[in-house]
Amino acid sequence: MTRTDMNIFEQYESEVRSYCRSFPTVFHEAKGSKMWDEQGREYIDFFSGAGALNYGHNDEHMKEALIDYIKQDGITHSLDKATTAKGQFIQAFNDIILKPREMNYKMMFPGPTGTNAVESALKLARKVTGRTDVISFTNGFHGMTIGSLSVTGNAMKRKGAGVPLEHAVTMPYDRFISEDLETLEYLERFLENGGSGVDIPAAMIVETVQGEGGINAARFKWLKKLDEICKRWDILLIVDDIQAGIGRTGAFFSFEEAGIEPDIVCLSKSLSGYGLPLAIMLSKPELDIWQPGEHNGTFRGNNHAFVTATAALDYWKDDQFEASIKQKADMTHEFLHRLVKDYPELKGTVKGRGLMVGIACEDDGMAEKVAAQAFELGLIMETAGANDEVFKLFPAMTISKDELKQGLAIIEESVKKLVKEPVLN
Amino acid sequence: MTRTDMNIFEQYESEVRSYCRSFPTVFHEAKGSKMWDEQGREYIDFFSGAGALNYGHNDEHMKEALIDYIKQDGITHSLDKATTAKGQFIQAFNDIILKPREMNYKMMFPGPTGTNAVESALKLARKVTGRTDVISFTNGFHGMTIGSLSVTGNAMKRKGAGVPLEHAVTMPYDRFISEDLETLEYLERFLENGGSGVDIPAAMIVETVQGEGGINAARFKWLKKLDEICKRWDILLIVDDIQAGIGRTGAFFSFEEAGIEPDIVCLSKSLSGYGLPLAIMLSKPELDIWQPGEHNGTFRGNNHAFVTATAALDYWKDDQFEASIKQKADMTHEFLHRLVKDYPELKGTVKGRGLMVGIACEDDGMAEKVAAQAFELGLIMETAGANDEVFKLFPAMTISKDELKQGLAIIEESVKKLVKEPVLN
Amino acid sequence: MTRTDMNIFEQYESEVRSYCRSFPTVFHEAKGSKMWDEQGREYIDFFSGAGALNYGHNDEHMKEALIDYIKQDGITHSLDKATTAKGQFIQAFNDIILKPREMNYKMMFPGPTGTNAVESALKLARKVTGRTDVISFTNGFHGMTIGSLSVTGNAMKRKGAGVPLEHAVTMPYDRFISEDLETLEYLERFLENGGSGVDIPAAMIVETVQGEGGINAARFKWLKKLDEICKRWDILLIVDDIQAGIGRTGAFFSFEEAGIEPDIVCLSKSLSGYGLPLAIMLSKPELDIWQPGEHNGTFRGNNHAFVTATAALDYWKDDQFEASIKQKADMTHEFLHRLVKDYPELKGTVKGRGLMVGIACEDDGMAEKVAAQAFELGLIMETAGANDEVFKLFPAMTISKDELKQGLAIIEESVKKLVKEPVLN
Amino acid sequence: MTRTDMNIFEQYESEVRSYCRSFPTVFHEAKGSKMWDEQGREYIDFFSGAGALNYGHNDEHMKEALIDYIKQDGITHSLDKATTAKGQFIQAFNDIILKPREMNYKMMFPGPTGTNAVESALKLARKVTGRTDVISFTNGFHGMTIGSLSVTGNAMKRKGAGVPLEHAVTMPYDRFISEDLETLEYLERFLENGGSGVDIPAAMIVETVQGEGGINAARFKWLKKLDEICKRWDILLIVDDIQAGIGRTGAFFSFEEAGIEPDIVCLSKSLSGYGLPLAIMLSKPELDIWQPGEHNGTFRGNNHAFVTATAALDYWKDDQFEASIKQKADMTHEFLHRLVKDYPELKGTVKGRGLMVGIACEDDGMAEKVAAQAFELGLIMETAGANDEVFKLFPAMTISKDELKQGLAIIEESVKKLVKEPVLN
Repeated sequence: MTRTDMNIFEQYESEVRSYCRSFPTVFHEAKGSKMWDEQGREYIDFFSGAGALNYGHNDEHMKEALIDYIKQDGITHSLDKATTAKGQFIQAFNDIILKPREMNYKMMFPGPTGTNAVESALKLARKVTGRTDVISFTNGFHGMTIGSLSVTGNAMKRKGAGVPLEHAVTMPYDRFISEDLETLEYLERFLENGGSGVDIPAAMIVETVQGEGGINAARFKWLKKLDEICKRWDILLIVDDIQAGIGRTGAFFSFEEAGIEPDIVCLSKSLSGYGLPLAIMLSKPELDIWQPGEHNGTFRGNNHAFVTATAALDYWKDDQFEASIKQKADMTHEFLHRLVKDYPELKGTVKGRGLMVGIACEDDGMAEKVAAQAFELGLIMETAGANDEVFKLFPAMTISKDELKQGLAIIEESVKKLVKEPVLN
Repeated sequence: MTRTDMNIFEQYESEVRSYCRSFPTVFHEAKGSKMWDEQGREYIDFFSGAGALNYGHNDEHMKEALIDYIKQDGITHSLDKATTAKGQFIQAFNDIILKPREMNYKMMFPGPTGTNAVESALKLARKVTGRTDVISFTNGFHGMTIGSLSVTGNAMKRKGAGVPLEHAVTMPYDRFISEDLETLEYLERFLENGGSGVDIPAAMIVETVQGEGGINAARFKWLKKLDEICKRWDILLIVDDIQAGIGRTGAFFSFEEAGIEPDIVCLSKSLSGYGLPLAIMLSKPELDIWQPGEHNGTFRGNNHAFVTATAALDYWKDDQFEASIKQKADMTHEFLHRLVKDYPELKGTVKGRGLMVGIACEDDGMAEKVAAQAFELGLIMETAGANDEVFKLFPAMTISKDELKQGLAIIEESVKKLVKEPVLN
Repeated sequence: MTRTDMNIFEQYESEVRSYCRSFPTVFHEAKGSKMWDEQGREYIDFFSGAGALNYGHNDEHMKEALIDYIKQDGITHSLDKATTAKGQFIQAFNDIILKPREMNYKMMFPGPTGTNAVESALKLARKVTGRTDVISFTNGFHGMTIGSLSVTGNAMKRKGAGVPLEHAVTMPYDRFISEDLETLEYLERFLENGGSGVDIPAAMIVETVQGEGGINAARFKWLKKLDEICKRWDILLIVDDIQAGIGRTGAFFSFEEAGIEPDIVCLSKSLSGYGLPLAIMLSKPELDIWQPGEHNGTFRGNNHAFVTATAALDYWKDDQFEASIKQKADMTHEFLHRLVKDYPELKGTVKGRGLMVGIACEDDGMAEKVAAQAFELGLIMETAGANDEVFKLFPAMTISKDELKQGLAIIEESVKKLVKEPVLN
Repeated sequence: MTRTDMNIFEQYESEVRSYCRSFPTVFHEAKGSKMWDEQGREYIDFFSGAGALNYGHNDEHMKEALIDYIKQDGITHSLDKATTAKGQFIQAFNDIILKPREMNYKMMFPGPTGTNAVESALKLARKVTGRTDVISFTNGFHGMTIGSLSVTGNAMKRKGAGVPLEHAVTMPYDRFISEDLETLEYLERFLENGGSGVDIPAAMIVETVQGEGGINAARFKWLKKLDEICKRWDILLIVDDIQAGIGRTGAFFSFEEAGIEPDIVCLSKSLSGYGLPLAIMLSKPELDIWQPGEHNGTFRGNNHAFVTATAALDYWKDDQFEASIKQKADMTHEFLHRLVKDYPELKGTVKGRGLMVGIACEDDGMAEKVAAQAFELGLIMETAGANDEVFKLFPAMTISKDELKQGLAIIEESVKKLVKEPVLN
């Protein structure tokens, strides 16, 4: 068995590295919801690559398709040339995802990462409307390149820009001020008042559930009203479904349940299914007014990812997969609500939707302690929120019920250890 | 054999698609310097994924390593967690590339594409210096996200931003004004004059040979002087070696021959060797003042790419590979100079360095016609420059001499067809 | 009597001209609260130069001082050289205004107009804090140069910039959302949440009563809370007292009654007393870290204005002037409340504080009609608000009670004419 | 005689004050080219309010007109209402200045200072063209508000902004690089190359002679070529004639001799003749597409300044005034050339045009020493240039030959004192 010296990372890798500090071991192998490090320790994965591994690690069906493709010397890298693998993906995405949902979108391959999709969405919205500003929401997270960072809320990450971030206006997300205050009335007041200092924007960009921002799930009525406001003021609605999409909240798109249809949708993370870099930007056909090559990028044609992404779509051919996610989500929500009740010392609030959930802890540092303790006990789980106040459960959608229970049990044990004495009902 | 309907792309893919218009066929298979479309037509590839396939397609050594890794369920996606594959890549990159060149850099994995590397370089330079402006050069190309686009020269692509591009000042690249005018005297005059309106920048970002900008190769003395100016004014020098690096001009880094050592280096494209998305940003250790997580991204840990990148480094273990590139570059330059002389109707000028070469044609549209004709004859080659005035030869560094000759012959035949009557010596 | 052809203005003056369209006559002479046009028509002035003529027209005391000064060939223009007239103004301003109020401010002469004062205030706040953003408020008005326009709310005027306006964040002014919603809780939520996307600003800039924005008077508790928030977060508080200051709301500074002491105060308009261009920027001494000459301007030393400004300060030597303003303000408020009650068709709401008052009319265009009708009847009065929904009463503070009554009577008559049938109590 | 305590300024006035440091006395009275301080010391004024007092101090003709106007209670402050005084000024400006020169411009009153005129010019140019960038020139000076500061070169003043200055590109002024290098070829290369990173701007803004920037006079052929380039690329040409205009270089407009007619002209400083704040922005009629009130300002109607400005135009009713300026300019140039020759230790170069002249001294601090010495000997004169390397002669255009000689003699004596031993021919 290989043994990698952890010093390699400390000595040669930039100080910017982060997760290797929370999970200080060298990972070696993974399958489904399990990971193993070089010492052979086994972990249950409730992290799922921050939403990039919704189907778990190294799914067998995708793996076979990928190995076959590589063996046959299929095109690996193609920029935006037409390839067989790309054609198959486009066809499958239309047949399995868009058509059954009666959605009509054109697909743009803007580069293989989420921020490429967001940057191209912002560009297109500005080009179409001739306006410069974009409204984003508190605690939104859209990426680290300057365009995406401008619509991202996190102060530490914004400071990293080194330049003032411009052409964006932040409005309060659902429940940002308080549980009751209707933040969209506030937003609309700014739009309708000609002296508000907020110019009518090109677009609004929103996550239906904010991942990095602290597992904040917007209410459907809020999303519906947002959609109405956008239509009323002729503002494009961009849903960044990079973390919440691809089944994470139950349906393929996170906005389906809310009954809205955005003008532009950004997808990435679990799109390739296998954890390979892939992103698409969907736009209503009438918005697709790009000049050829007006946006480009070297890795727009990552064919390995097309192959696994096409295989991943098989999960969505009928309703079973979605139903199974729902079952596991119900189990998880039930557990979390009980946990919060049984351990009042946690001062916890359950957050999220579907399998995109977490517990916000009132006391500083508590969520991080729970996650650290869980890691000790063999569970990988990250924290979220501006102050890392939420521990975040992102089990794979393909996790077995046993593994799910096992993982939840580790969380309970971690909490118990930290708060010492559980309150018994 | 699969048959993909080209209409799929026209109907479902965004209008932004570009290369599939120049090369209107569906590619299916590739090996080394050859590609085949679904009709079984064979092409010689002088495009090399715009520099992402310097080692050719589906290199056997890398392919084996990759299949082995996948079969063993090695970690595929890891964000910035430590993995065996990542550790091996870091070690190999240090042992094979940095140490023998007596270079001391820290490695940052900023996301898997070139623009991620550029954006993080700009951020770091601004953070370190506390200044906002960056000097870029005419016809520079650094990426499509807002930060990178701000330092990119191309007017059409800039317009695509939809917002004014800021915090950047463009200075003339070597030979921009004329063959003789020393553009760096001009630049320095702006720095030294306190009334010039050009504030001392955080950094200068430069390509030693501009790819997209028209295969413009800066003279070594120009690069040396640029380096001196940066040192004199305490400005960081960023070399964007995304297209010119990884052997394309002969040495691993394109700036080695010029005898300079930049503060920051951006690498991507051929870094993974196999065409998989991977990028790194190298910085002098004293500049590495990032906060953990201050820049992040989902696909920073693309382990398939680590595996092939490590295998690719084997090419650089001794001097033979570099020597072989030089031989092929000499052959190519010789050919191009003869071509220009034999076909004066082409009104051509040879441009570039190493295997990063092309011919600039005076007449509008000529370079595009040559490339289109070559495609008809079975050669894939793109154009470059603000007006696509250059046809661009990017053969793989691993191409056989026979394939190289074959490709060059197609170019000559294409030119001949276009100018009708070749001048005979 | 001179007769000026109105065509001169239409033919030679820019289309940007505005008040000459609302008051289509050529004015010739003025004294106190009266103006006369070239036809000898007399007008009562409830406009007062938008707050620049709080002491009425051509005040005798100031007039004598000015004529004396001119006759003696006193320095007229001095940039920021020391002059006798400037020294006397500085001394008087300290003795009569600052000392009795126990205020400690340094005086900067940033150029003679309000926007010069605002621009220099913004510069200084950014320089002192090292931060770039400034929080401004909905319907705020601070000037037409790019720095001031960035913190101004009016959409039409913002559009006139021709460039995106940056480095400013607009927050809701008191009662912007509704009568009850506490807008400052909302504001502070943005400051305290590290993911809000609103960076801690250099300063907040506020008018205690918004003039152009629609005669919106902030409640004292709102101003006090704003002051506390600024102190809590180490944000500078800038009061733009250009329109509301110099007695317009009763006290010399509009913020005195609220019991706050801003870090920076901008004064202009009625500062010279006589309508001559003059502005100052007051800052706490510890903030005064300018380099000599870091901000400059040609007309910083308008000595005619120093002379009249010094004479004007005589009004403030005891409490009588302030008391008389209060009496007239009471009369005016009483009248306005009765008017709104007697003429429900007006759908009016009384707005403002002191002699800075108006009536907001619900129906589009009504306020403009009232002002136009009043002009017909010999009263000059302007409208305010993003949609000109407020007619605005700005009588001179020196107006006689008879003239005041006369003016108010014209307003009532105008309203009566418009709504036809007054409701009798 | 009044005695003002200099401590008043030190104690109460901001540290930003500047000229009172170079000329440390309290000025009291002035007439023509003479000033007197409170001690009764007499000074010859070669400063002329940095170009705001081209007609000298307190000109008798204007003084009488002004006193008459004030005595008659003429309108003092009128915003942009029509007044008799304003109508007379507009008429006189058209009759005496524009018509005889066959110029067709609309007049905008943008506020009474130079920077108001520049800001409105930039706004209009952006509005008309729909473009955001403006090209300015090295060592240009256009004002201290953010819009004007963005097109100003001085590094210290730019830093004072506290925010990055945007939407402007600086190009090299005539002779910026060297005496021979044709800087406009350089500029045009940027415009014609689609990859230059310099977008086609809304306008170019230029001074024909740069005052603050170091008395740099552009050659007429350079100005002509600039005009041609603007026309060729459909870019508006803005001449900022605030310091060089109103006779300073001989003709009323500084650009007349060059034979060009700008699209937009900014005037201020000596426009009112008497040193009172006044500015206008002239634009070709077809550009005047402002919305009413789209730009405004409190002191657009400074009627005292209209009165003196109208009186000042009497100087321009025939050619004698212009001829007399030329004579004095010739005397001055002759003197300066002799001075440079006679005192080689000065290492001086004569700069400028008309009565806008100076000597650039090679050695750091020399120019400031000459000016300081001259002040000791009774002459007021300032320095200019990014490093204050130029001492600047701005005698009033109305100066008598005797006073002029007297002033020049003081300069020679100052230089002599400093360099100790004059070289004799």
